[in-house]
Amino acid sequence: MRPPDPRAERTRSSALASARELLVEQGLAGLTHGAVAARSGVSRATLYRHWPEPADLVCDAVAWHIEAVRPEPTGDLRADLLAELSATHAMLHEPVMEQAMRVIIERAGVDPRFAEVKVSLHRSGTGAVRAILADAIARAELPAELDIDLAVDQLHGPLFFRRLVAHRTFDLDYVRRVIDQFLSSHRPEIQRPQGHS
Amino acid sequence: MRPPDPRAERTRSSALASARELLVEQGLAGLTHGAVAARSGVSRATLYRHWPEPADLVCDAVAWHIEAVRPEPTGDLRADLLAELSATHAMLHEPVMEQAMRVIIERAGVDPRFAEVKVSLHRSGTGAVRAILADAIARAELPAELDIDLAVDQLHGPLFFRRLVAHRTFDLDYVRRVIDQFLSSHRPEIQRPQGHS
Repeated sequence: MRPPDPRAERTRSSALASARELLVEQGLAGLTHGAVAARSGVSRATLYRHWPEPADLVCDAVAWHIEAVRPEPTGDLRADLLAELSATHAMLHEPVMEQAMRVIIERAGVDPRFAEVKVSLHRSGTGAVRAILADAIARAELPAELDIDLAVDQLHGPLFFRRLVAHRTFDLDYVRRVIDQFLSSHRPEIQRPQGHS
Repeated sequence: MRPPDPRAERTRSSALASARELLVEQGLAGLTHGAVAARSGVSRATLYRHWPEPADLVCDAVAWHIEAVRPEPTGDLRADLLAELSATHAMLHEPVMEQAMRVIIERAGVDPRFAEVKVSLHRSGTGAVRAILADAIARAELPAELDIDLAVDQLHGPLFFRRLVAHRTFDLDYVRRVIDQFLSSHRPEIQRPQGHS
């Protein structure tokens, strides 16, 4: 494998930074090859070579946003889940990211390209939580038989449901309660913070 | 208050039945006043009087679907949750209802009429679970301090997240596990079915 070409990396970063700005300023409708070329100075030909369809740019731009706000895990299960889901909380309350997620959910139902985008975003968006849970299992802080897919749904699901389906905002106290109830159902020996007996 | 006029009720039922058929056959795009009039025989003028905008028809048609598949509660907490979330499971796997939900989630982000529709659907869609939980609290089967809003998110959230965000299907065994883990976190004295210690 060749090492990455630094100039190609710079071009890619510049294009994605512009794509991300456009997504935040104008939503998906503004994220076209022409607009990214005009803002980044990267040629349309290069953009089309890297990202043949707008859905590819959307995917990388949103994935870049997910990476940019990703906290470093510390090895403290509760603190790491809280940091990660706080980033999800921030994304669900950032107007354009929120709308981008709504659009991707809708388009994925009818457009296979967007369905791929969504699968890819779901993978990168939940990857950190999967890693945190796997590490906690390795440290014997969670049961070895934990179903990580189900755990991801139990942690992310309430947040997405409240913001995108119930159409309500929520605060970090809500995030803490989702995490604490998740932990209490899998680590019953630990004192419950909610006082449920 | 006057008793409902039987003829007006019949007109309303006939229009909504046609609207529901159109929604299932053609999605939201096919649910227009003209198409409902043609199918139901109810005049456009009457339709516009009852449902001034397409969003009103969408709301009533989806709400009608929610009511049509709603099971009767029996007073058995786990069985009632399972029946109710099985109906949600069915809806999330019925292609047009699923796509209708995707469209409503997207449109609600930009169109206040759809935001109202979504709030109303969320209320009717989660009302049965709220009632089941409130009854269980009244029977002292769940703690009096249970946060019913959070509980609704914990029960519905994983299902919506898995189908609409992770873009995966799921079976009734998944629904049972979501319910059992929810119950085990709120009723820790009861034997866990998953074998988590």
